[in-house]
Amino acid sequence: MPQEFYTSAAVHATDVERIFRRQWVFVGHSCQIIEAGEFFTVTIGSDPLIVIRGDDGVIRALHNVCRHRGTLISREDCGKARRLVCPYHQWTYERDGTLASCRGMHKGIDRDELGLLPAHVEDLEGMLFVCLSNTPPDFATAREAMTSVIRPQRMGEAKVAKIVDYDVAANWKLVWENNRECYHCNVNHPQYIKANFDHFNSDDTTPEVQARIDTAAARHETQCAKNELEITHKETGMATFPDPDQGRWFAANRTTLVEGYVSESMDGQQVAPLMGDYKDADVGTMRCRTMPNMWNHSSCDHVVSTRLLPLAANLTQARVMWLVHPEADEGRDYELENLMPFWQLTSEQDWELCEVAQTGISSCAYRPGPYSTHKEYNVDAFVRWYLEALVK
Amino acid sequence: MPQEFYTSAAVHATDVERIFRRQWVFVGHSCQIIEAGEFFTVTIGSDPLIVIRGDDGVIRALHNVCRHRGTLISREDCGKARRLVCPYHQWTYERDGTLASCRGMHKGIDRDELGLLPAHVEDLEGMLFVCLSNTPPDFATAREAMTSVIRPQRMGEAKVAKIVDYDVAANWKLVWENNRECYHCNVNHPQYIKANFDHFNSDDTTPEVQARIDTAAARHETQCAKNELEITHKETGMATFPDPDQGRWFAANRTTLVEGYVSESMDGQQVAPLMGDYKDADVGTMRCRTMPNMWNHSSCDHVVSTRLLPLAANLTQARVMWLVHPEADEGRDYELENLMPFWQLTSEQDWELCEVAQTGISSCAYRPGPYSTHKEYNVDAFVRWYLEALVK
Amino acid sequence: MPQEFYTSAAVHATDVERIFRRQWVFVGHSCQIIEAGEFFTVTIGSDPLIVIRGDDGVIRALHNVCRHRGTLISREDCGKARRLVCPYHQWTYERDGTLASCRGMHKGIDRDELGLLPAHVEDLEGMLFVCLSNTPPDFATAREAMTSVIRPQRMGEAKVAKIVDYDVAANWKLVWENNRECYHCNVNHPQYIKANFDHFNSDDTTPEVQARIDTAAARHETQCAKNELEITHKETGMATFPDPDQGRWFAANRTTLVEGYVSESMDGQQVAPLMGDYKDADVGTMRCRTMPNMWNHSSCDHVVSTRLLPLAANLTQARVMWLVHPEADEGRDYELENLMPFWQLTSEQDWELCEVAQTGISSCAYRPGPYSTHKEYNVDAFVRWYLEALVK
Repeated sequence: MPQEFYTSAAVHATDVERIFRRQWVFVGHSCQIIEAGEFFTVTIGSDPLIVIRGDDGVIRALHNVCRHRGTLISREDCGKARRLVCPYHQWTYERDGTLASCRGMHKGIDRDELGLLPAHVEDLEGMLFVCLSNTPPDFATAREAMTSVIRPQRMGEAKVAKIVDYDVAANWKLVWENNRECYHCNVNHPQYIKANFDHFNSDDTTPEVQARIDTAAARHETQCAKNELEITHKETGMATFPDPDQGRWFAANRTTLVEGYVSESMDGQQVAPLMGDYKDADVGTMRCRTMPNMWNHSSCDHVVSTRLLPLAANLTQARVMWLVHPEADEGRDYELENLMPFWQLTSEQDWELCEVAQTGISSCAYRPGPYSTHKEYNVDAFVRWYLEALVK
Repeated sequence: MPQEFYTSAAVHATDVERIFRRQWVFVGHSCQIIEAGEFFTVTIGSDPLIVIRGDDGVIRALHNVCRHRGTLISREDCGKARRLVCPYHQWTYERDGTLASCRGMHKGIDRDELGLLPAHVEDLEGMLFVCLSNTPPDFATAREAMTSVIRPQRMGEAKVAKIVDYDVAANWKLVWENNRECYHCNVNHPQYIKANFDHFNSDDTTPEVQARIDTAAARHETQCAKNELEITHKETGMATFPDPDQGRWFAANRTTLVEGYVSESMDGQQVAPLMGDYKDADVGTMRCRTMPNMWNHSSCDHVVSTRLLPLAANLTQARVMWLVHPEADEGRDYELENLMPFWQLTSEQDWELCEVAQTGISSCAYRPGPYSTHKEYNVDAFVRWYLEALVK
Repeated sequence: MPQEFYTSAAVHATDVERIFRRQWVFVGHSCQIIEAGEFFTVTIGSDPLIVIRGDDGVIRALHNVCRHRGTLISREDCGKARRLVCPYHQWTYERDGTLASCRGMHKGIDRDELGLLPAHVEDLEGMLFVCLSNTPPDFATAREAMTSVIRPQRMGEAKVAKIVDYDVAANWKLVWENNRECYHCNVNHPQYIKANFDHFNSDDTTPEVQARIDTAAARHETQCAKNELEITHKETGMATFPDPDQGRWFAANRTTLVEGYVSESMDGQQVAPLMGDYKDADVGTMRCRTMPNMWNHSSCDHVVSTRLLPLAANLTQARVMWLVHPEADEGRDYELENLMPFWQLTSEQDWELCEVAQTGISSCAYRPGPYSTHKEYNVDAFVRWYLEALVK
């Protein structure tokens, strides 16, 4: 796309307004807030939110903005609150956002109208999505399409092992363009390509490689049948995503790992207890992504979710989260030094590529070049999705 | 007020242009510059000034900008200068701004036209106000209304004990809105409420509290009569200020302290020698404030002045200054560790509240809420004053 | 010039677009890249470039921007490359910018059209100039006028002894205005005025001073004749430059040093081996400058080049480079502590003056003042050159 899409403050503001304030934005996992009153905060653009579990067990997204003078109510990243109390004048809200008390106000104000403003929230198998729009787009279709693929991982009953936040000096769309192709993998992701086949494309999938994929798929399918799973992506290359022509901003599939790999770990060996419904380790890998800001790689023993939030035209926050079995104990059942490096390294390698792309694109000599039809079909699909979303 | 008033760069520029370049801006105290040639510098918006005492004893405000090539003449916060010499080409100005020499210039330039540009300055009982406008608003009314209340403190003959500068990440108007109500005091200012009654309002002044106020006022009045002072504010709550309907951008009064408090110090005890005309400690407290940027709390033994300067839509410089009796010596007559904490803590507590207000107000979910008629009447008055000043 | 020319982001963008993207911009010295494949990078505005010597010995300026996805190819300040390989997808370019390989692309893309975009480059006696415009202004006239003056220094066969980069918090035009007069030298540059006569102007050149200049010129000319050099500037004050009326954005001359000085060093003594064609030390000093961003002071034994690059309305990168004889070894033939201080101190003194000028000019009280016809004729000339260049 032309330079301005990656560098202009006006386009950034438009991206926030027309995409991040209208679409379903991934914010985190339900297993971050298990008990009533547990919450985490997240800021989408300049909009701070509290995502909190109520006394009724329901997870709500509330604007973290007092209805009195607009003060930020919680300054914590996460915590547990009996009630939400504004630090300024102690207006106090219930866990569902209802105004409980506002000592010092005169009579006649309508307390029912002064609860914390809510945002829409959906819980898809433990993944939480928020929509700031009053008229959120359809979520049911996404839920229907993805649930059966995601469910066996049982993320809703998982445990957070680690969260790492990055400031990436690149436009959020460059981070997606990076994510949507594995053309850059061979040289930049030495550990990723050891575990996966999807860096092979129509131009470089030799018969030998195809035979390896077929063998891996067959091997997984034997196990998967036992686990009532299905390998849904057996083709070469990355699964097609997004698909603006079909209105598909979501996708989930199960695919193969190379021989000897049962987990996306440095040596391919299991690094934590089996999660969810899995009775066997050799079940390939489950992947899902949603526009505009989430992708997820799930192995038999752990989950890695990545969440993007645009901070400026040339700055994106990327949060990477590792989940494990809810009863797994660090030190006994898993070690972070084994669990994390595969995706920590791969992520950091990508952030650096995004940053050099951002710098070059800012030049007057930048000319959008050709996308490889073999390898960058999903970059093209992303750009088309984005442009449609922008004008919708 | 709507979000833009606190977050927009355009509104900030308008605030500087229409308020800080037109109104009487408090810059400091005359006791900072006692001898001829002593000066301090201050920057209002992007306008650097030198406030200097001349050989004639008169205090002048001169633009700190050489008339030759526009260079900043003094880079010091304060000092003493025989003449003001531009570091670039040594154009030299007298202490009154007259161009004294400009070695190297050709004949025929009109030196009389090339003195440092002056700004208007007023000295109100030792408090210095500058107006950048060529047609400053009336000052005489303010002087007449405040002089008799302020004079006994004798700030013009005081001594600066300490200056602390803060960068507050909030719009200057949020700092005022914070200052204009004590609704937030109960929880946020534990030491302030021990010394004062004005956090009580019409809704929570019990008969017992009113009796305490009456007793304190009577006690002070006995002493005040001896000192030829007058308790002018005996009502519950904060004195009304500002009053845009009456054109009052200034106010001064004397009010009570709670039993056992003769000074706004941590334990209420005197922390420095009596100042000014006071012959007795138990004289309540003198307060004055002026729009757009000053408030002052004066006890029998010390003065605390706060000066605001807007740096950006979301950034304000707050300077807090402590004054004591001119002959008081640190270590002998007072200790900073006793003198400072009351207002240092209260100020820092307020800055933090202003900063969380700024963050929340930046959200799309911010909706201006109702002001408590009991407790936030002065916030409402401030907002009305501001809007009038903006369009005047 | 009015304030906006020094403070406005819009004027800064216009300066970059209409001057730095159209004029011949000095980027460095050919002796930084002697062997094939040696390169250095430079960013003009937001345009990153690689200046690289090809297998054919020719120096080229290539946009440091991959033709595929716009990625910055080299992140190094300088280095040596067999080929230029984009870190993202390994598109590979020859040292002349030709696309050598792009593994993974489909058939049918036109590789001939996908070489690195070139910029124009000229090598003037070892000084490299780049022009980003497709229709660069005439360079031949500058070459013809300056070559014979510059050649004896033999910068093309020199060696870089040291490079120091500064971020100067001032508009690039203030840096030039500072450079274009020596009115500020007497007080600010104590070491410079010991070595030079050009701080004397028509108003303060006494007969004694003129006699010293004449004596120095005569002394140099004796030596210069032996060296086939010519003293071209024997007048008092700085040589006139630039000259917008004559279209002269370039100038070179040889001028005198004071008695006892054979080099612009702290004590005037030689600090490195004789350079170039010089057979004797006492040959005065060679100076050249080009708009919009270079000046150079060359003594018999070393060269100092200064390169300006505008970073923002109030920020300029200044690079100062010291060159010596190609076979001079640090520690044996020269010491940096003797070579550098004269121009390091003078430069840093100037940066500080530029920064206080920037601060003062940002005031509402800034009024452009009169230029001394004795001493600031070249500042006036610079301003006129700039305004013409801007509207051309």
